[in-house]
Amino acid sequence: MSLDDVPRSVYTDDHEAFRATVRQFLQKEVAPNAAKWQEEGIVPKSIWPKAGELGMLCPTVPEEYGGLGLDFGYNAIVDEESSYYGGAATGFSLQSDIVANYIIRYGSEEQKKHWLPRMISGETITAIAMTEPGTGSDLQGMRTTAKKDGNHYVISGSKTYITNGQNADLILVCVKTDTEIEPAWKGMSIVLVEADREGFKRGRNLDKIGMDEADTSELFFEDVRVPITNCLGEEGKGFIYLMSELPQERLSIAVSAMASTQKAFDETVGFARDRMVFGKPLLDFQNTRFVLADLKAKLQVGWAHLDWALARHLKKELTPEEGAAAKLWHTDLQWEVMDKCLQLHGGAGYMNEYPIARMWRGARVTRIFGGTNEIMKELIGRKL
Amino acid sequence: MSLDDVPRSVYTDDHEAFRATVRQFLQKEVAPNAAKWQEEGIVPKSIWPKAGELGMLCPTVPEEYGGLGLDFGYNAIVDEESSYYGGAATGFSLQSDIVANYIIRYGSEEQKKHWLPRMISGETITAIAMTEPGTGSDLQGMRTTAKKDGNHYVISGSKTYITNGQNADLILVCVKTDTEIEPAWKGMSIVLVEADREGFKRGRNLDKIGMDEADTSELFFEDVRVPITNCLGEEGKGFIYLMSELPQERLSIAVSAMASTQKAFDETVGFARDRMVFGKPLLDFQNTRFVLADLKAKLQVGWAHLDWALARHLKKELTPEEGAAAKLWHTDLQWEVMDKCLQLHGGAGYMNEYPIARMWRGARVTRIFGGTNEIMKELIGRKL
Amino acid sequence: MSLDDVPRSVYTDDHEAFRATVRQFLQKEVAPNAAKWQEEGIVPKSIWPKAGELGMLCPTVPEEYGGLGLDFGYNAIVDEESSYYGGAATGFSLQSDIVANYIIRYGSEEQKKHWLPRMISGETITAIAMTEPGTGSDLQGMRTTAKKDGNHYVISGSKTYITNGQNADLILVCVKTDTEIEPAWKGMSIVLVEADREGFKRGRNLDKIGMDEADTSELFFEDVRVPITNCLGEEGKGFIYLMSELPQERLSIAVSAMASTQKAFDETVGFARDRMVFGKPLLDFQNTRFVLADLKAKLQVGWAHLDWALARHLKKELTPEEGAAAKLWHTDLQWEVMDKCLQLHGGAGYMNEYPIARMWRGARVTRIFGGTNEIMKELIGRKL
Amino acid sequence: MSLDDVPRSVYTDDHEAFRATVRQFLQKEVAPNAAKWQEEGIVPKSIWPKAGELGMLCPTVPEEYGGLGLDFGYNAIVDEESSYYGGAATGFSLQSDIVANYIIRYGSEEQKKHWLPRMISGETITAIAMTEPGTGSDLQGMRTTAKKDGNHYVISGSKTYITNGQNADLILVCVKTDTEIEPAWKGMSIVLVEADREGFKRGRNLDKIGMDEADTSELFFEDVRVPITNCLGEEGKGFIYLMSELPQERLSIAVSAMASTQKAFDETVGFARDRMVFGKPLLDFQNTRFVLADLKAKLQVGWAHLDWALARHLKKELTPEEGAAAKLWHTDLQWEVMDKCLQLHGGAGYMNEYPIARMWRGARVTRIFGGTNEIMKELIGRKL
Repeated sequence: MSLDDVPRSVYTDDHEAFRATVRQFLQKEVAPNAAKWQEEGIVPKSIWPKAGELGMLCPTVPEEYGGLGLDFGYNAIVDEESSYYGGAATGFSLQSDIVANYIIRYGSEEQKKHWLPRMISGETITAIAMTEPGTGSDLQGMRTTAKKDGNHYVISGSKTYITNGQNADLILVCVKTDTEIEPAWKGMSIVLVEADREGFKRGRNLDKIGMDEADTSELFFEDVRVPITNCLGEEGKGFIYLMSELPQERLSIAVSAMASTQKAFDETVGFARDRMVFGKPLLDFQNTRFVLADLKAKLQVGWAHLDWALARHLKKELTPEEGAAAKLWHTDLQWEVMDKCLQLHGGAGYMNEYPIARMWRGARVTRIFGGTNEIMKELIGRKL
Repeated sequence: MSLDDVPRSVYTDDHEAFRATVRQFLQKEVAPNAAKWQEEGIVPKSIWPKAGELGMLCPTVPEEYGGLGLDFGYNAIVDEESSYYGGAATGFSLQSDIVANYIIRYGSEEQKKHWLPRMISGETITAIAMTEPGTGSDLQGMRTTAKKDGNHYVISGSKTYITNGQNADLILVCVKTDTEIEPAWKGMSIVLVEADREGFKRGRNLDKIGMDEADTSELFFEDVRVPITNCLGEEGKGFIYLMSELPQERLSIAVSAMASTQKAFDETVGFARDRMVFGKPLLDFQNTRFVLADLKAKLQVGWAHLDWALARHLKKELTPEEGAAAKLWHTDLQWEVMDKCLQLHGGAGYMNEYPIARMWRGARVTRIFGGTNEIMKELIGRKL
Repeated sequence: MSLDDVPRSVYTDDHEAFRATVRQFLQKEVAPNAAKWQEEGIVPKSIWPKAGELGMLCPTVPEEYGGLGLDFGYNAIVDEESSYYGGAATGFSLQSDIVANYIIRYGSEEQKKHWLPRMISGETITAIAMTEPGTGSDLQGMRTTAKKDGNHYVISGSKTYITNGQNADLILVCVKTDTEIEPAWKGMSIVLVEADREGFKRGRNLDKIGMDEADTSELFFEDVRVPITNCLGEEGKGFIYLMSELPQERLSIAVSAMASTQKAFDETVGFARDRMVFGKPLLDFQNTRFVLADLKAKLQVGWAHLDWALARHLKKELTPEEGAAAKLWHTDLQWEVMDKCLQLHGGAGYMNEYPIARMWRGARVTRIFGGTNEIMKELIGRKL
Repeated sequence: MSLDDVPRSVYTDDHEAFRATVRQFLQKEVAPNAAKWQEEGIVPKSIWPKAGELGMLCPTVPEEYGGLGLDFGYNAIVDEESSYYGGAATGFSLQSDIVANYIIRYGSEEQKKHWLPRMISGETITAIAMTEPGTGSDLQGMRTTAKKDGNHYVISGSKTYITNGQNADLILVCVKTDTEIEPAWKGMSIVLVEADREGFKRGRNLDKIGMDEADTSELFFEDVRVPITNCLGEEGKGFIYLMSELPQERLSIAVSAMASTQKAFDETVGFARDRMVFGKPLLDFQNTRFVLADLKAKLQVGWAHLDWALARHLKKELTPEEGAAAKLWHTDLQWEVMDKCLQLHGGAGYMNEYPIARMWRGARVTRIFGGTNEIMKELIGRKL
């Protein structure tokens, strides 16, 4: 099996044509270099403009800002193909599925005109900085402040676990512009910080369990001055903006998770077919077949749900709870499949040279990032 | 929440109009009597003609045989509504979703003309007899034989776990018409046996864990003579016929399972909202919310998959493996939800007077009937 | 395998000699009647004196009150044997493991002299009434009151889910003797109520999922007058007494659960060895072996832990948290084993005529009674 | 909590005194260097003589071969302490718990006199080479041969996943001395190969998911000549020797797994107590407490079982199936605990700088090595 064997219902012929382009790019530019980038702990900036040329970055940006004005299905295709064929996390998804959206929806005309074309071309790489050391998913506990000084903010604080942290040219930083107001979330704002601002420092490119090529980093802000016009949308609305955009972020995680789940399954069926144990293929043992059959049923269910969720998002009907449920369920499934597939590999599964080991290590983060799965349950549970 | 709050994609307005009729019938004729029928261990024959009048029986029968010529979506609606609002297993589903199909597809013109109108009106209640004492899902191990004697078969053997066993007027009996042939499945045929044939005896109405109102029974055949024209389709094709019709049977199980899963969930959210524990509603405890949130995510996934599978079946694209996967996954989900919901009821959950106890007992059979879930894995696994 | 094949470490030869007596009694007096009692929904009082004669009731009562002054190991043996060989819940365990303990430890000299000999002989059957309609495991929410009127209490309220409810001659009733005091648990007392007191009424013998022979009932107290000397120990200490005795109650549940788990496993291995599927024994399929092997490993672990916990309890070292952990873990294991064993039975598993069906139904209550497993987690979690 | 808070029953005061020595060594010589060794992918040979001086290596070797003649409890203490306090896999366990045993039981007098004193002192580091590329746990499929040439064997073949592969001075190599015989296992022998033999080559120090400091390696044998006297025990008995020694090897894995499980739990309770989320400690959330309480119950059960198994092994009563069950259950538990503990760490759990990340990565191998857990089920299942 491969990704092409999955019966899908959400995509048009145009989407599928785009898929072919994306796959070609990944097979030519990304997959052959994945091991090297994993070694180096970072993806080179040079692949961004190449992806930009092919329309792979921020496809939903309206034409007036230099974009293609396409729907989120195009983003989803980049996510699926990257997970299945790329073998490395490029960081595109953060820019296309998340950051672009904030700027399109809440940015000033000036911000949109300046940044969107550069994000589309790959000239500018972006990040979004929410988590702080010691706070995790608890956004209201954040301590980074932006104090007004004339027509500037002075930003102080530190952030961690920031995707694209080493490569980013522009960071959307979540800050407190008001530390007194109650409830606390009303004091939160999002401010654009260019990486060449004085006082901005990149910390360590963090050593992680997996996703070795992703430059997840610490960032430090030591009295960084940025003009007040760098505020995204209105002051004090940061928390509301985050809440509004999270369904798409979570759906994006679900899409990538589902494609990597299929990849792990397909790899393992191949392995079990080839590997001889006690004189017959591993696949011929009833336990192997039962484990894989059960996973295959779950994959069928997963793709059906993903298409449902994508279709619903394209119609703007996907609720925050549904997005949270998608993130929760697909990443739980991803982990179950990864772990059972690794186990079927036996000793080989523990060796990093086998793709399953890399995928398995990478997959462990998805139940944590984008809001832990416990937070997802909290969000869904509140609406019962 | 109720069944109406689930966003569906597979049904038309006509389907939904039919749903209203069905629900009214269930709320008036079935639900108020469910407890009584459970006590009695059987549903009275008298409700069949009432359902027949409303078009609820065998909606897919072509107009030329007195039917409405509708699609399987109408069957699915009867299944969903019965599971959610009926509170009792009527046995309609076996007749409409399974038996009618065999006769439509493989019956002789005479058989169709005679039986289909009676099945639609509810005058005739049907059953299908596959399982034998000691054989379970292993159809090839069956020992009931039909020996030819002139232009008659003489049928000897016994069957068990037969749905509608006490009420049935007509039984489709799986027999061996050839006990020598290899492979054994080539000797299998399906023969129509009217319940008033000499030598046919009903055994015990079996005492089960749940589904108390279902007259699941033993049936005995002691040299029962039926004309050779009672054979369904061709002699020796019985096994092939069974294999062809199983996807719809399995989808039918998945449909009922999904609706009863939703029912258990909705009941439990209501219970958790009302029940005070340590001075606050049970729903206000984080563990309760987390358990229910996780189940809600799974329900969302389940409905999306069910609609996908129904749509695919309506287009005649659902493969046997996909049908098996649906049966496997939805009944596994049903059990997980039932058991967690019962647990949240505490001591009340163990008392038969609470709906959750009845639903939970009833649900235990779905991982077993229609082919055990182990058989489903076997079927899916073979195609890997 | 049978119970005798389990390597145990906690019992002496004297314990094992007692086991033989108990088993003989169960095989002669209980097992042959179990089905009848299940039909009738109650165990006849007449078996109590027979068990009493053999020393099976309340073996830990000191000799000065007519007892044998033995250790809890003897109770455990009655529990194990009853679960494995009895086929019916007699209600002995409640009297021997729980009620006797309260009277021994907290009863007045008069109460001990009067009741203990009768409890040992089986002349008196006892119950303990904690749960109330709508409160579950939340003892502090109880609404039954005992108001002082001269040297009497006047008791009003209702209780439910009371084991031995129909048979009981004496009930230890948890009441509020002070409804104002804060914290509320300081107003709780335990009062002995004889079943022939005016105003005491038995309600329904409840219809349960399983344990059909157990007369779990509702009890009503309508201004029941009992002398103040019927108070167990000190007024206002009821809650503390309950907390002190719960570890033994929970260990008792763990003991019974473990023995019934072994029984279900042994039954299923036998079934899988005999049952032919697709031409070979069910046990010869890898999936069957893997499922059973995994359960067997867990049984090994379970018995080792049970012996550890019993040994620790005999040395009075078992903490409340350890008792709660034993109840939690052993009943979770019991359920996992029951459900997987039932599944391996296929259709037979759903029929009440098979022992696995009865055991499975009975086992569902153990995660609920004696404090739900959620309450166990709460208790363990508080001490982290 | 720490390892000292677990109530144990199997150890004497002498054992516990030894534990203190071991702990001191680990805290002084191992823990402070663990990170460095993980970076380097190997533990320096220099720590072996230090451990040897303290009696930590091969404590069960009889006094006549320079050993202390102690019981396996001393090995278990080294294993427990290393897992809990060491922070690095030293490879001692392989030498003490496994290799020494083969030589003690099957070695010639000459082999014992030569090698055991050197293994005790740490002068010689050993390995055992079973697995081959592409064979996994299927020992009978092995292709490494030892052909007789005069009074020498000529060994050809390759091995992989060999613990202590880079450091080993002496390797016990599983070979086929007879490739024709049926059944194949009768042709298997174990031959001692010194690392300085011509034709022996070390391959890659493998890049693994975890246990970074363990020099798990490939080994190549290109016509390596060793004298026939290097055969361990009798030719053709290799498979039988392996089968006899596996229970101790599996118990050893269970011991290490259990201690590391406790370590992960203790770390996580500490983390949850310190980490503030939404204004209160993570431990104060009901979900956190429930997850940890459930794990604590399992730890209690696990330690009870481990002591049971150790006591049984010390009395030489532990059967191969019981050893397999111990390996299966304890490593399954280890994984469940590791994964849930990592999840409670949130983003921190994914960062290698946190101990939980390293422990989690390391723990993934234990369900695979020493025979996969599927093989354990096969072994237990065969005896049903």
